Amino acid sequence: MKTITINECAEHLLKADNILILMHKSPDGDAIGCAYALAHALRKAGKRAMPVCTDDIPKKYSYITDTLEVQDFEPEYIVSVDLADTQLFGDKLIQYKDKVNLCIDHHGSNTGFAEYGFIDAGAGACAQIIKKVINAMKVDIDKNIANAIFTGIVTDTGCFKYSNATVESYNIAAEMLEHGAEGFFINRLMFDTKSRQRLEMEKLALESMKFYNNGQIAVIFITRDMIEKSGAEDGDTEGIAGMPRQVEGVKIGITFREKEKGTFKISMRSSGDIDVSALCQKLGGGGHKAAAGCSMTGDIDEIEKTVVEIAGTAL
Amino acid sequence: MKTITINECAEHLLKADNILILMHKSPDGDAIGCAYALAHALRKAGKRAMPVCTDDIPKKYSYITDTLEVQDFEPEYIVSVDLADTQLFGDKLIQYKDKVNLCIDHHGSNTGFAEYGFIDAGAGACAQIIKKVINAMKVDIDKNIANAIFTGIVTDTGCFKYSNATVESYNIAAEMLEHGAEGFFINRLMFDTKSRQRLEMEKLALESMKFYNNGQIAVIFITRDMIEKSGAEDGDTEGIAGMPRQVEGVKIGITFREKEKGTFKISMRSSGDIDVSALCQKLGGGGHKAAAGCSMTGDIDEIEKTVVEIAGTAL
Repeated sequence: MKTITINECAEHLLKADNILILMHKSPDGDAIGCAYALAHALRKAGKRAMPVCTDDIPKKYSYITDTLEVQDFEPEYIVSVDLADTQLFGDKLIQYKDKVNLCIDHHGSNTGFAEYGFIDAGAGACAQIIKKVINAMKVDIDKNIANAIFTGIVTDTGCFKYSNATVESYNIAAEMLEHGAEGFFINRLMFDTKSRQRLEMEKLALESMKFYNNGQIAVIFITRDMIEKSGAEDGDTEGIAGMPRQVEGVKIGITFREKEKGTFKISMRSSGDIDVSALCQKLGGGGHKAAAGCSMTGDIDEIEKTVVEIAGTAL
Repeated sequence: MKTITINECAEHLLKADNILILMHKSPDGDAIGCAYALAHALRKAGKRAMPVCTDDIPKKYSYITDTLEVQDFEPEYIVSVDLADTQLFGDKLIQYKDKVNLCIDHHGSNTGFAEYGFIDAGAGACAQIIKKVINAMKVDIDKNIANAIFTGIVTDTGCFKYSNATVESYNIAAEMLEHGAEGFFINRLMFDTKSRQRLEMEKLALESMKFYNNGQIAVIFITRDMIEKSGAEDGDTEGIAGMPRQVEGVKIGITFREKEKGTFKISMRSSGDIDVSALCQKLGGGGHKAAAGCSMTGDIDEIEKTVVEIAGTAL
């Protein structure tokens, strides 16, 4: 991958048309915010552009997705946003894995699968980079773009609570409010509203919590049984991986989430002082310093033992 | 009370010395942030200045209070910050109720007890006003002042989740980060850290949750038994009254908290569309439109029935 500047990203995009914008599977607020903000901006620049994702976009983001009419076209240019690895393309997008023209991302672990790329691991949210690309494209930021960028920033920084929230995160969020972003509505929806299923899920997750290494490691489990019992959908479990790390004294929080019977997605969280990305790399995964993950298959007790042991080496 | 400008507030303060800064009883992050930021600024301007409060400052704010050495002097000038009413002075400060020279506040309900005052009800946090007064005093904002102002903003806006968070709240928070405020440390401490006892309390509260009126009313219980079982202290139950209202579809959230065997403090929360203060007034209590309360004694089942019935009249 050839690294280019923000201005060059804008130039490349302004030369292209019929642009497909790839999101990672299990899309979160930053992926969705980036893709829809960029799509709106490209359309304002006269292009055809459409965000695509292997998975359905969770309904709670409809205030973003409903603002963009579906466009159907033969893609001529492919850009990925907030996407670190072709492993995250999912089955519907994997056909594009060798065809990505431009990659805009904030994951230091980005595998460089695209022809050109701009990666800024210092950006709290990829949406902060997309905002600069839109500025460089000289497209005015309207309310739809502002809502999408604002959503990316607040969801990826945990409403400014995570260590990745920088002065720039606050400043761009404020700028988006000035462009019409509905900050109160978005923050309330993302951080102060829970479905009954989510609540049930949290209760079960709390009941499953265990502590290791003198309370410095906390683990929770989200099994298929728990998901069924709570009636939770995929969107209802978002952010639950942050729960164990919230407990006073916990340095590493670990969530074991059963994707299919016997296959677990493991999420690790720290306060940024411990590099959980390095720990997850030992288990075949990766991510950010304070938030990383990996996948493992087998007996859950064995998996738990292995993961806690690896985590313990960092204390 | 004579209303003056921010610049005049600064002029009055710069003319004074031996300045006592009054906080309200049960001080919160905004009261503490305002008082300590102003004290630091006045000392940098060569004055003697000391914040005072009827109640002890909660330990979690020690990163603010520890930065200021105690000064003992005969007060010559008295300024109150974030203080709406002499009823909130408490027993230690009530001696000053007719002696306040200057009142800086953001409560529209301010009773005008001081000689001079600046009230801006549009400021999400009073700390936003104090920051402007410090600017007008031409005192450089250092890390101690920045931490105090930042704390005031994030605590009074619920980390930007409440409707009072404005563009200015974000912008001043960002400016404080540039002056060295430890945003991650503060937000983590205020919004992302829970004691194990608190977690246990939340689990028990969730287990007690019941719904009425097609899910528009949610109630939880915090009994003496639950408090004992969880090992929770008073600080561990702070904010739990907000839980039932967070549930999707809930318009009125009600918390029954047993103060002594058979005596309950009832808290009602809405999203501001339903006036729960009016409902609580019918039960002998009162409060704000979105957050109110009352006390009742008797059989909990009877009390619950009465309160839910009254709440139902507002739907």
